[in-house]
Amino acid sequence: MNFIKVGKILGKIMILESILMLAPLAVSIIYKEGLRNILAFLIPIALLLLVGILLQLPKPKRDNLYQKEGFALTAMVWLVMTLFGALPFVINKDIPDYIDAWFEIMSGFTTTGSSIVTDITAISHSGLFWRSFSHWIGGMGILVFVLIFIPESNEGSSMHLLRAESPGPQVGKLASKMKVTTRILYLIYLGMTAIEILILCFGPLTDYEAMREALGEPLASAYHNDKLFNALLASFGCAGTGGFGFIPNSMEYFTPFAQYVMSVFLILFGVNFSLYYLILIGKIGQVFKSEELRSYCLLLVFAVGLVFLSLMGSFGSVPQEYTVEEAFRHSLFQVASLISTTGFSTTDFNLWPMLGRTVLLVVMLTGAMAGSTAGGIKISRIVIAFKGAMVNIRKLINPRYVPKSKIEGKLLEERTTNDVFSFITLYFFLLIGVVVLLSFDPINGQAVTIVSDAGEYTVTHDFYSNFSATVACLSNIGPGFEAVGPYSSYAGFNWVSKITLTLTMMIGRLEILPVLILFNPKTWKRV
Amino acid sequence: MNFIKVGKILGKIMILESILMLAPLAVSIIYKEGLRNILAFLIPIALLLLVGILLQLPKPKRDNLYQKEGFALTAMVWLVMTLFGALPFVINKDIPDYIDAWFEIMSGFTTTGSSIVTDITAISHSGLFWRSFSHWIGGMGILVFVLIFIPESNEGSSMHLLRAESPGPQVGKLASKMKVTTRILYLIYLGMTAIEILILCFGPLTDYEAMREALGEPLASAYHNDKLFNALLASFGCAGTGGFGFIPNSMEYFTPFAQYVMSVFLILFGVNFSLYYLILIGKIGQVFKSEELRSYCLLLVFAVGLVFLSLMGSFGSVPQEYTVEEAFRHSLFQVASLISTTGFSTTDFNLWPMLGRTVLLVVMLTGAMAGSTAGGIKISRIVIAFKGAMVNIRKLINPRYVPKSKIEGKLLEERTTNDVFSFITLYFFLLIGVVVLLSFDPINGQAVTIVSDAGEYTVTHDFYSNFSATVACLSNIGPGFEAVGPYSSYAGFNWVSKITLTLTMMIGRLEILPVLILFNPKTWKRV
Repeated sequence: MNFIKVGKILGKIMILESILMLAPLAVSIIYKEGLRNILAFLIPIALLLLVGILLQLPKPKRDNLYQKEGFALTAMVWLVMTLFGALPFVINKDIPDYIDAWFEIMSGFTTTGSSIVTDITAISHSGLFWRSFSHWIGGMGILVFVLIFIPESNEGSSMHLLRAESPGPQVGKLASKMKVTTRILYLIYLGMTAIEILILCFGPLTDYEAMREALGEPLASAYHNDKLFNALLASFGCAGTGGFGFIPNSMEYFTPFAQYVMSVFLILFGVNFSLYYLILIGKIGQVFKSEELRSYCLLLVFAVGLVFLSLMGSFGSVPQEYTVEEAFRHSLFQVASLISTTGFSTTDFNLWPMLGRTVLLVVMLTGAMAGSTAGGIKISRIVIAFKGAMVNIRKLINPRYVPKSKIEGKLLEERTTNDVFSFITLYFFLLIGVVVLLSFDPINGQAVTIVSDAGEYTVTHDFYSNFSATVACLSNIGPGFEAVGPYSSYAGFNWVSKITLTLTMMIGRLEILPVLILFNPKTWKRV
Repeated sequence: MNFIKVGKILGKIMILESILMLAPLAVSIIYKEGLRNILAFLIPIALLLLVGILLQLPKPKRDNLYQKEGFALTAMVWLVMTLFGALPFVINKDIPDYIDAWFEIMSGFTTTGSSIVTDITAISHSGLFWRSFSHWIGGMGILVFVLIFIPESNEGSSMHLLRAESPGPQVGKLASKMKVTTRILYLIYLGMTAIEILILCFGPLTDYEAMREALGEPLASAYHNDKLFNALLASFGCAGTGGFGFIPNSMEYFTPFAQYVMSVFLILFGVNFSLYYLILIGKIGQVFKSEELRSYCLLLVFAVGLVFLSLMGSFGSVPQEYTVEEAFRHSLFQVASLISTTGFSTTDFNLWPMLGRTVLLVVMLTGAMAGSTAGGIKISRIVIAFKGAMVNIRKLINPRYVPKSKIEGKLLEERTTNDVFSFITLYFFLLIGVVVLLSFDPINGQAVTIVSDAGEYTVTHDFYSNFSATVACLSNIGPGFEAVGPYSSYAGFNWVSKITLTLTMMIGRLEILPVLILFNPKTWKRV
């Protein structure tokens, strides 16, 4: 391994992280949180800068990196960023336990949103900001990491990476130069986040009456008056498809207006970014030709419809205590939040009828579109797998069958199908493997009391908890069901399970990278 | 489609089924069950014979079948055999509802063992015999169906089928002639079943005291004196890896001796049958070279060990009220029963610690060896998938990497890996799809009271029930967890769910066929 070169890039990332930490530091100063909270960011910033600059000093003998070094580096970057990123929580005592803090910031950077925080009111403003800001960085990071670690001379292969995630003509049309492409994607990301912040600031954001009733004063007023702060953090969560809560009970106290706005943005951030570029340059017709977009929309309509019907008491399920508007809003918001692997919640979907919960689990597994900030298996892979399965069945019937299946207008090559099948197989193997590891935790079989908008009730930490917790971490979603539902936390797991889930979140995020590269690198060489 | 030829083969199968029904008819006469029970078999026999013979009359224009006709035929055979096979239960009123009866006999022929019978004491001897006998037929059937529907001229491809299931040199060595191979496999199957029946008859079979305490007289004496009948049915269940119970509470009242004997045979029937042939011809050295056998043994040791430790209270789980011997026996039996996808139970594993239950779920998913009568994904596929994944990772690191991975001493070709990946992906897609369909059932959220050897308790029919019910049906196992655990039944599902699960069992059984053919047909052509 080219340690010096790897160290240099790692050092640059550390310097970048120290710069990013200036934002929560500023928040700490603005909210006059005192010396400890300021030091909580100053110390890590100093450490990061020191090590980062020291790593720049040696001269590497070789200036390029081999592919395997690139992968190792990617893993190291995630470890270094999160291991240092956890420090502020430990220093300012927001999350005194280091493993908990590491879990929390890994959940942030991987845009998962699973939390071990049981009392969100005890977290400082700067801590809340750093958590949600890490979602936004992580959302960008998927692109950053892909682009930074490919040697600049090797521009062709970086293009392959970007293109790989969107098996279609879109990325190819974006722009021929790497740097330009990156800049365009960032501008879209920045622009959409800014628009969401503005809209949320413009309308009524939080429901003061509901908060006063549930949380009392002075909390209700404090949260209600913190409008810009809340709008910022909500938008960071949507854009990065993260989903950390920053006021009690996630988005329960947000106004219907804000919930609808967020639903729309959640759905929008689940769309392949290159489609926005096509819109920007006026090629709207091509956008509607995207097979994945059509599948995404179809799945959204079906999922929202089924969840809504189940909440209204169809198919023999017990009708929930919602008005029609509430049932629709919660269905829309929850589907949008889980399909985009964000994980915000507006109500306790843990108590929803089985049908509603199962549909939510399905969209948790599918995830949103490739080329977006969302995690999970991704709809393009699901579509490719279905088409590949059909080809296999046809081949079975007629061994001389020559496949003519197309994806996004291009011939679906066997190599693509195979990589997708291999990814999905690995996904489920990992899922089962982590569920086995979690079953060692003494928390299994224990009763967990949950207090939600539907009242207080007790659940047993059982298979459903472990299974959904694993899906939620592997697909970078956040909440699961039963003991890890939207109104509970991951605090009850022991440290072994917490480390397991922390690494699961990282694997969930990184799995995409290797597969990205596998995802048809040679097919596109001619273009 | 060559309807006449398809009809002819279908007719032959129907005549075969009418002959097989003579066995339960004889049981009915021996146990003097009266006219209705005798008619329950005579009427279907007459119907099957009539239709079967009528179908033989027309002369087909073309004598061969295309591959797609072969597949359609296979599906039709399963439908016809089960639709007629359900009639006896309806006529003798053992299971008056036709959909229930269809579910039951599909569960029998597919060697699943899921049951909708809530009171086993109310079922006639002939009914019990027909249920368990169908396991034994189904266990053979996997071979029968593979062999019958390939035109005889096309012997090469039938060999491919057999070989496909055991990616190694074993089958090739079996015998060059198809008919001989079939005969040898049947003799092994028959022989092993006969040995099990003899051993079970030789030792103490049922625990009279325990039965008298739980069931009272005259039931206890009746069951205890029915030794040959019980030994037969237990052996049918083991051999076909089916698992229908025939006395109350599955195998709870069998003596430890009988439980150990059955554990051993359950494990033996999960072994690739061609390995027994190798033993018969003295090539024992080659048997131990089988990678799949080694993986199977390793998995067994690990699974039994972990389940045993969890029952003894390791890893923070609550120790169960078993002696060490009991804990070991139950662990061994339950792992053997579920890895071989049989589904017999000796105790209520529904109440076991999470770790034990999760390990059981894992072996339910893996299943036993290819080329055995077991269902599920099969260990060879798991091994191939892992090796394929390693190859993919190596290719990622070094794009010019030439894979040299071997399976059973032969080069692992990409085609094989792809078919395996495709199978596993489809397996999980089907699993998720059926779980969604089951979530429509109004049974979800309802409380189910279970009375087992551990006492009476109530569970809620929730995600865990649907998920494990689907795995149990798709892998042809039988019981699942929670509301479909070993001491409950599938009776609570509504008719839509029952039909869904009935077809799931069939797909679980048939999925193997297409994949079999896909499973490397060309690779082996040279041999």
